[in-house]
Amino acid sequence: MIKRDFLALEDWSRDEVDELLSLAARVKRGEIGGGLEKKVLAMIFMDPSLRTRTSFETAMFLHGGHAIVLEPGKGSWALETEPGAVMDGDTVEHIVDAARVLGRYADALGVRSFPRAADWAVAREDPVLRSFAKYCEKPVINFESARRHPCQALADAMTLREKLGQTEGKRFVLTWAWHPKALPTAVPASAALAAAGLGMEIVIARPPGYELDPEDTALIRRLAQQSGGEFVHIIDDPDEATVGADAVYVKSWGSVKLYGKPGEEAALRAGFRDWRLTPARLRSTRGGKAIVMHCLPVRRNVEIDDAVLDGPNSVVVDQAENRLHTERALLLKVIGRES
Amino acid sequence: MIKRDFLALEDWSRDEVDELLSLAARVKRGEIGGGLEKKVLAMIFMDPSLRTRTSFETAMFLHGGHAIVLEPGKGSWALETEPGAVMDGDTVEHIVDAARVLGRYADALGVRSFPRAADWAVAREDPVLRSFAKYCEKPVINFESARRHPCQALADAMTLREKLGQTEGKRFVLTWAWHPKALPTAVPASAALAAAGLGMEIVIARPPGYELDPEDTALIRRLAQQSGGEFVHIIDDPDEATVGADAVYVKSWGSVKLYGKPGEEAALRAGFRDWRLTPARLRSTRGGKAIVMHCLPVRRNVEIDDAVLDGPNSVVVDQAENRLHTERALLLKVIGRES
Amino acid sequence: MIKRDFLALEDWSRDEVDELLSLAARVKRGEIGGGLEKKVLAMIFMDPSLRTRTSFETAMFLHGGHAIVLEPGKGSWALETEPGAVMDGDTVEHIVDAARVLGRYADALGVRSFPRAADWAVAREDPVLRSFAKYCEKPVINFESARRHPCQALADAMTLREKLGQTEGKRFVLTWAWHPKALPTAVPASAALAAAGLGMEIVIARPPGYELDPEDTALIRRLAQQSGGEFVHIIDDPDEATVGADAVYVKSWGSVKLYGKPGEEAALRAGFRDWRLTPARLRSTRGGKAIVMHCLPVRRNVEIDDAVLDGPNSVVVDQAENRLHTERALLLKVIGRES
Repeated sequence: MIKRDFLALEDWSRDEVDELLSLAARVKRGEIGGGLEKKVLAMIFMDPSLRTRTSFETAMFLHGGHAIVLEPGKGSWALETEPGAVMDGDTVEHIVDAARVLGRYADALGVRSFPRAADWAVAREDPVLRSFAKYCEKPVINFESARRHPCQALADAMTLREKLGQTEGKRFVLTWAWHPKALPTAVPASAALAAAGLGMEIVIARPPGYELDPEDTALIRRLAQQSGGEFVHIIDDPDEATVGADAVYVKSWGSVKLYGKPGEEAALRAGFRDWRLTPARLRSTRGGKAIVMHCLPVRRNVEIDDAVLDGPNSVVVDQAENRLHTERALLLKVIGRES
Repeated sequence: MIKRDFLALEDWSRDEVDELLSLAARVKRGEIGGGLEKKVLAMIFMDPSLRTRTSFETAMFLHGGHAIVLEPGKGSWALETEPGAVMDGDTVEHIVDAARVLGRYADALGVRSFPRAADWAVAREDPVLRSFAKYCEKPVINFESARRHPCQALADAMTLREKLGQTEGKRFVLTWAWHPKALPTAVPASAALAAAGLGMEIVIARPPGYELDPEDTALIRRLAQQSGGEFVHIIDDPDEATVGADAVYVKSWGSVKLYGKPGEEAALRAGFRDWRLTPARLRSTRGGKAIVMHCLPVRRNVEIDDAVLDGPNSVVVDQAENRLHTERALLLKVIGRES
Repeated sequence: MIKRDFLALEDWSRDEVDELLSLAARVKRGEIGGGLEKKVLAMIFMDPSLRTRTSFETAMFLHGGHAIVLEPGKGSWALETEPGAVMDGDTVEHIVDAARVLGRYADALGVRSFPRAADWAVAREDPVLRSFAKYCEKPVINFESARRHPCQALADAMTLREKLGQTEGKRFVLTWAWHPKALPTAVPASAALAAAGLGMEIVIARPPGYELDPEDTALIRRLAQQSGGEFVHIIDDPDEATVGADAVYVKSWGSVKLYGKPGEEAALRAGFRDWRLTPARLRSTRGGKAIVMHCLPVRRNVEIDDAVLDGPNSVVVDQAENRLHTERALLLKVIGRES
C-alpha cells in the first residue's frame, strides 16, 4: 500500500479535489458519522496555530479519532533538520528519527513549519515538511509550509463554490496588503492555485517587488488555462485591483526577492501601507457585492477595515468554518473510512 | 435558541443553581453517564491553570465529549482586545475574530483571563471575558476573570452543603491572608456570594485597605438577606475573625483601592503577614470544628499552616474534587443532554 | 484495595514483568481492545518529552481512555517540592496538594522529573516522583526520574526478546557515548537491569569516572545472577566493549561522582569524544550481527554514526514502537481491565 501525502493541492488531481469538496459538503450537512475510530493524528507545530490546531483536533474527535499536539522545542525536543549533521549543538533529535518514530505511533502526521532557511532557494523546497514526508511511513499533511497551505486552499475552494455557485469565469482577485511582518507566500499562492483550479479569472494585485515566486505564478497561469479560466496580472494599484471582482482575497506576504534581507524588505514594504481593503475599494467590485476572503488571523484596520470585516460581504468566518469540514473530508480520505 | 453563558453565579437564578447542585450530586454518585457525545469545549487560558484545566478536560471526556486547550500567545496567537484597534503592533488576532471562529468549531468556550487593565474601573468590567461572550455565538463559561470565578463558587456551594448539611444560619467566614502577590478578588467575591445564596451568616475579615469592591459587598449583603442569611463585617483582626465559624474560607487578594499601584499595594500588604490560618485560630471556631476551605493553589505556611491543611478540618481536596462534579453538571446543562 | 505504583522495574517481580511482556505481545498482535474506558491518565512533565508523551496519549486513546498533558511552570503552576516550606517565593503550589487533587480527577499519574537537586545523595532519592507516589491516592507511573526509566526498560526488554528470541546467556553491552550534556543515569541503569532480568551476560563499558551509582551496579549484578546471567565489567576501551556482543545499547550519561560540579564534569567528559558507535566497532560484535539499541533521542554522529543508525542492525525505531505496546499493557494492568 502506498501512503498518500497531502503536501500541496496541485499534487492531487482535479477529480480527487472535486471528490474531497463533495465529501466536505456532505460532512457539513451532517451526513457522515464516524470513520476515524482508533486513528491518531500527530500534529507537529513548529509555529503557532489557532484554526489549524482547533479544527483538526475537532475533526479527529468528531469522527472517533484523536489528535495529539506536539510543539518541538517547547514541550518536546528541538529538531535537527540537516542531513548528516554532527549533532553536538542545541538540537537534540533529528527529524529523521522523529518522523520514523511518530510514524509508528500515529496514523498520520500534520506538520506546520514556516520558512527558516536564510535563502529562498532553500526555504522554497520546504525541507522540514519534505523530510517528514520522506522519512515517515504514514501520510503527512502540510499544515502550512514556506510555499503551500493546502488545507487553507481546500477551505477556500469550498467557500468560493458555496458563495458563488458556478465559479467558472468569475473574477478572483488576490490582493496584497500591508502588514508589520514579512509573511510566507504559502497562503496567497495556494489560494490562487485553488481559484485557478475552479476555472476563475485570476487577478493578482501587489506592489512592485512583491511578485510571487515565478514558478508559482506560472503554475497558477497553467492551472487557470487548463480549467477554462484566465490569468490577468495587475501591477501596482490597489484601487484598480478590486474593480469588477466577484471575490477579493486579501493577504499580506513578504517580498520573495528580498527574502533573507529583512532590513531592505521592511524598507520596501514601508511605502505600501495604503494597500488595505477599505469600504471604498469594496464598492468597486462587481455591483459592490464581491465576497471578502482572508485566511485569518487578520490585522484589523491594517489589512482590512473593521467596516469591511464586520459587514455583509465578509465571509472570513464561514471560510474558517470550512477548514473543519474540508479537513474532516481529507482525514476520511487519507486515513479513514473513505480511503 | 438563546445561548446560555455562565459568567457569574448570580446571573443564574437560585432555582437554577439549586438544580445544578442537585445534578452535581447525582453525577458524583455515578448516576449520570454520557450526555456530551460529539461536543467540543474550547478552553482559552490567558493565565495558567491546573484544576480548571484538568477538571474540565476530565469532565468532557467522562461524558463522551472533548476539551481543547488553547493558550493564546504560547501555542496560538496573541489576542487583541481593544475595539477598533489598528493592529500594527504585537497582537496578531482580534478577540472578535477568535471568538467568532471558535464558535464555529466548538460547542462552548471556557475563558480564563485575569485582570490586565491598568485601572480597576476597566478591569472590573472583565473586558476579555465579556468580548468572548458578546462575539461568540456559543455559550461562554467564565474560567476565572478579574471579578468572578463562578465554577469555583459552584464547587464551594456543593462542598458547604455536603459538609454542613443545612447551611442556613451557619457562619461562613471569609478571611484574607497574606500572599507574596496581589491576587484578583474573583474567588473571594464569588465564594461569599455562593455562601450568601445558601442563607449563611457572612463574615468578611480583612485588614484595612483590603475591602472588596463596594458593589460586590453590597451584592453579597443583598443576596444574604434574600436567602434568609445575614451579613456581619468584621474589621482588622485575624484572631477575632474565626471565632464561632462553621466554615473558614481562607483567601488572599490584592487591594482594590491600590489596583494599578503595585508599589504602594505591596507596602500596605507587607504589614499584614500575620494574617494566616494557624491551629490556634482554628481552635476558636465553633467547637474547633469548622471546615477549612481554600480554592487552591495555597501557599503553605503563608496563607494556612501545614498543620491545618493536613489536619481533619481541611476540606480543600474535597472542594477541588467538587470542581469536577459541578462542572460535569454545568456542561450537561449548558451544552449537553440536560440543556 | 492497595494502589500499584510503577516506579522502577525491579519493584515488580520477575513473574509480573513476564506477564506484562506477554500482555504487550498480545496487544501488539492486536488481540486486546478496550479496557480503559472512562479512565484518565494525568501526565506531569517537568521535563520535555516526545516518545513518552505521544505513546502514552496514544495508548490511553486506543483503549478508550484519555491522557491529559500537564507542564508545571508552563501551562500550570510551578510546584514546590520541599516538605514544610514557607511558600513565600516563586512556587505557587505544593506537590502535596497537586498530588492529592490530581488523584481525585485522574485514575493514574505519570510523572517525569529529571534530577534538580544540587547533590546526588538527594537527587538519587527521586524526591519529586516519590512525593507524588506518597501523596497521590492513585497509582503513579515513573515517566523518567533521576534514577529510573522503567517504561523504557519494559520496551527494551520486549525488544530484546523479539529480536534475540532466547535472551539467556546472550551478551548485552551497555556502552557509554559522549554527549554535549551530562545526562541522567536513569536509562542506562534501567536498561541494564532489564537485560539482567532476562538472564543475559551484562557488559558495561564506560570511561573512568563514569561508573554508574554503585548501588545500581550491585543490583544489576544481583539480578543477573538470580536470572542465570553473568556480569562482566569492562573498563576504559570503547573498541573492546562491543566485541562478541549480541546487543549493543548505546547511551550517554553524566558522571555521578562529579554530579553537581558541571565544570569539572564537562572537563572530564571532553576527553572521551571518541566514545561513539561506529561501523568498525559494530563489525566487532558477534558475526557483526548485534542489534543496536538506543532509547532516543539520539545525537547522530555524536553517539552513533548515521551509517549504523540507518543500517540493518539498528532496532531503535522498533524499540520506540515497543514503548507503545508495553505501555498499553502496563496501563491495562495498573488501571484497566487486567488489573
